[in-house]
Amino acid sequence: MVSIIHRIGIKSESDKVYNAISTIEGLTNWWTEEVEGDEKRGGKIKFTFRTKAGDIKGQMVMEVKELNPRKNIRWQCVEGPDEWIGTDLTFDLSKQDDQTIIIFGHRNWREAIEFTAHCSMKWAVFLLSLRNYVETGKGQPSPNDIKIDNWN
Amino acid sequence: MVSIIHRIGIKSESDKVYNAISTIEGLTNWWTEEVEGDEKRGGKIKFTFRTKAGDIKGQMVMEVKELNPRKNIRWQCVEGPDEWIGTDLTFDLSKQDDQTIIIFGHRNWREAIEFTAHCSMKWAVFLLSLRNYVETGKGQPSPNDIKIDNWN
Repeated sequence: MVSIIHRIGIKSESDKVYNAISTIEGLTNWWTEEVEGDEKRGGKIKFTFRTKAGDIKGQMVMEVKELNPRKNIRWQCVEGPDEWIGTDLTFDLSKQDDQTIIIFGHRNWREAIEFTAHCSMKWAVFLLSLRNYVETGKGQPSPNDIKIDNWN
Repeated sequence: MVSIIHRIGIKSESDKVYNAISTIEGLTNWWTEEVEGDEKRGGKIKFTFRTKAGDIKGQMVMEVKELNPRKNIRWQCVEGPDEWIGTDLTFDLSKQDDQTIIIFGHRNWREAIEFTAHCSMKWAVFLLSLRNYVETGKGQPSPNDIKIDNWN
């Protein structure tokens, strides 16, 4: 199986980083502005991505599998792009120096395809958006995310 | 084997992107300011990374394995961090819409470790630097690169 993994450090306490990833409110500030559902363990969260004109470009539903405050979050993708179904999204937090370190994973892709490479780069810019949100109060969630190629 | 792969699009002709990756001059503008060696096929290129104060943080040597103008570049790491030795660095270029698309790969890691996750995120910000350099004339090579965590 193929996994995307990234490491980023955020100058903030772990609970603030954890809340930005584990709550609907937090997620709307760095990934996509349109997030709805049940953020508790066992719940499902739906993410909608639109063009700036308002047309839907993509939607996905994550089931919340693990939630350990200030420690880790794991979702499993249950609806969305075909290649994403069944993959796991993991955020593992630790405190090092003056930073909260996140090891992010988008794990268990069936194969490494061009779309995987696109998603890897896209996750990197969303993690920079997460850092901006936590450190400054302002992230760049979709549809105002940094575009990285001709796909998005 | 484990690979980092990223996809990025640059609004420019392929030869300009190719030159930014295949020449010493180009590389100093987006990866690290200190690059020396022989950029031809079979040559070795040495990259030095320093702190802003001038202390050496890391050095690596790449052997140029493939060079196909406007198409692809492949290096193999022959000196550097232990985990990098023997890994392949690939840049595959294609023209799509008004962009030159790069599929970047840092391939054949022995295992996926925390340092791999760090390098994946770091490569993403260097690819953004490459795009900035080609599109605007100004990248963010080390030591003025975007820092992503407590390691760099």
